[in-house]
Amino acid sequence: MVGIRDIAAHLNVSVASVSRALNNHPYVNEELRRRVVESAKLLGYQPKQSGRSLRQGVSKTVGFMIETHPKLTSNIDLFLMSIFDGVQTVMRRHALSLVVLPCSGDEDPVEYLRGVVERRFVDALILSATRPNDKRVALLTKEGMPFITLGRTGFRDKQPWIDLDFESFAEQSVDRLYRSGNRRIAIMVPAGPLNFGQITLVGYQRALEKRGIAFDPALVAHVVLDEASAASACNTLLMNADPPTGIILINEALASGVYTCLRQSNLEPGRDVEIVSLEDGRLRSLPSPLTRFRFATHDIGIALGESLLSLVPAFAHYYAGTEFQRLWQFEVVEPTDLNT
Amino acid sequence: MVGIRDIAAHLNVSVASVSRALNNHPYVNEELRRRVVESAKLLGYQPKQSGRSLRQGVSKTVGFMIETHPKLTSNIDLFLMSIFDGVQTVMRRHALSLVVLPCSGDEDPVEYLRGVVERRFVDALILSATRPNDKRVALLTKEGMPFITLGRTGFRDKQPWIDLDFESFAEQSVDRLYRSGNRRIAIMVPAGPLNFGQITLVGYQRALEKRGIAFDPALVAHVVLDEASAASACNTLLMNADPPTGIILINEALASGVYTCLRQSNLEPGRDVEIVSLEDGRLRSLPSPLTRFRFATHDIGIALGESLLSLVPAFAHYYAGTEFQRLWQFEVVEPTDLNT
Repeated sequence: MVGIRDIAAHLNVSVASVSRALNNHPYVNEELRRRVVESAKLLGYQPKQSGRSLRQGVSKTVGFMIETHPKLTSNIDLFLMSIFDGVQTVMRRHALSLVVLPCSGDEDPVEYLRGVVERRFVDALILSATRPNDKRVALLTKEGMPFITLGRTGFRDKQPWIDLDFESFAEQSVDRLYRSGNRRIAIMVPAGPLNFGQITLVGYQRALEKRGIAFDPALVAHVVLDEASAASACNTLLMNADPPTGIILINEALASGVYTCLRQSNLEPGRDVEIVSLEDGRLRSLPSPLTRFRFATHDIGIALGESLLSLVPAFAHYYAGTEFQRLWQFEVVEPTDLNT
Repeated sequence: MVGIRDIAAHLNVSVASVSRALNNHPYVNEELRRRVVESAKLLGYQPKQSGRSLRQGVSKTVGFMIETHPKLTSNIDLFLMSIFDGVQTVMRRHALSLVVLPCSGDEDPVEYLRGVVERRFVDALILSATRPNDKRVALLTKEGMPFITLGRTGFRDKQPWIDLDFESFAEQSVDRLYRSGNRRIAIMVPAGPLNFGQITLVGYQRALEKRGIAFDPALVAHVVLDEASAASACNTLLMNADPPTGIILINEALASGVYTCLRQSNLEPGRDVEIVSLEDGRLRSLPSPLTRFRFATHDIGIALGESLLSLVPAFAHYYAGTEFQRLWQFEVVEPTDLNT
């Protein structure tokens, strides 16, 4: 039986080149691709089925499950659009399609996903909005569908994931505030079942402990990710007998609510109360008294797409060596002095 | 040949009830549905193919094409998530799936859509990010695929669409500002090819003309929809020999940029310069010196879903009388006095 080695010998090129050409690798010279295809025909080459499963599959489609419940998503959406763009960049290299699967607020995410799997109209999946011990992981593992989660679902996850390094964000935030003299450090995290709030709190507690500061539950605010909720939580923090001098925000959308609250109490953000936040993914924000932790959302999308395809037999060889579990680091953006 | 009238007579129920039961209408009593299906079998009823096309189709899926280029989308995303949620609510009534089709920034939207159509994996489509004379409309019309656009593509569109009433927003904004004494009224609209910026400008010019105010191109700012772009555009407006006393914003995301710019010039927004804006769809915003035009995004999603299905033969009878072209009105939210 004729193999790709025979084609390589016939054309006097490497086996890897032939493999790339036959698999429609995006970086193959068109002239070489044409010669390989012609030789394959000439020599009677028959591709093995296993290596072509997804490409020959019904769907050629990869799904990205999101949740559209406004209380869960709010400003997270800004973040997702840029990630879709990155994932799509990877899929186009292989003539695959990305479809986004929106689970609405009144649906159970596990049941929704079961429907997606049963219909078999995607070949691989990315899951977002992960919960602790997310049941969707067990479902996809059982079904044998390649998938990756954007976000962890526990500290001992076995499935592939990419996540922002929320512990590090919390720890570095506490460290910065501590170094500039703060000992009463508050944090605002999302209310609800999402996993990243829990992870952030773990990092926060660990960093406090390391610095010898007692954990005070009164300094932890669980908020909806909008301005009004942040302003209200900030008011409660200020009513504390020993109010915070530093505040960590899980999302920049909270900042303007906190600013408004502080200024109503004649406190200037950045001067009287120091603030650290994750950046919310806007294109370009204004100078700000915030220290911001920035993440490269488009690159996260590319990494998600590449990691996912490394799990799919037909594409694994393009992405050999891709990490399966990956914590994404932040870049720190220093606060801007607004008076200069 | 046995028809649904025979089944109705057999069961002594109305023809409409039998039709609903056979078409899996969501509001049919399960017991009735069971009896209808049994009678249909008993009497040898054969459904006509035409009425069952989409339901028997390969996909049972409706697509919603979006664009993920960050300069195009930015804060529009907040708006889209809630619309997806509304569309999905309608699709679930009929056990249909909604998939979102993200076209990335480096793809041509027309070519992207052609790929979607050729793959035939959706039965009907919603298009967003419409351009003037959008070529995607001609493509889908030629292919005979049912579709609706979120946004018009010109003033004489023949295709079904739902759009926010941007002319009315611009006209009402000019009127409000005029009534409170403003004669120099500026406007910020999106730079780029999207249609709604053009429509808004037409409404703005018409309203100025009606009030006898000369149109001044120096008062029209074309911006990227972010804070920094708004602040920069606001600075340019203030450098005008006769600067504006009122500003109309196409998106609330621009407001904080404008506030910052005004305050740096010792002007208080809402007092020294009056501002009117579209609301950007956040869950709950803080009290604001803005007059805001609010739209019910979830309801727009429901209307999009229902209008689309009214175009699909298998579902048309559920949504008889649905308007094909519909301008969505805004609710006006009065500015809040921040000192009370």
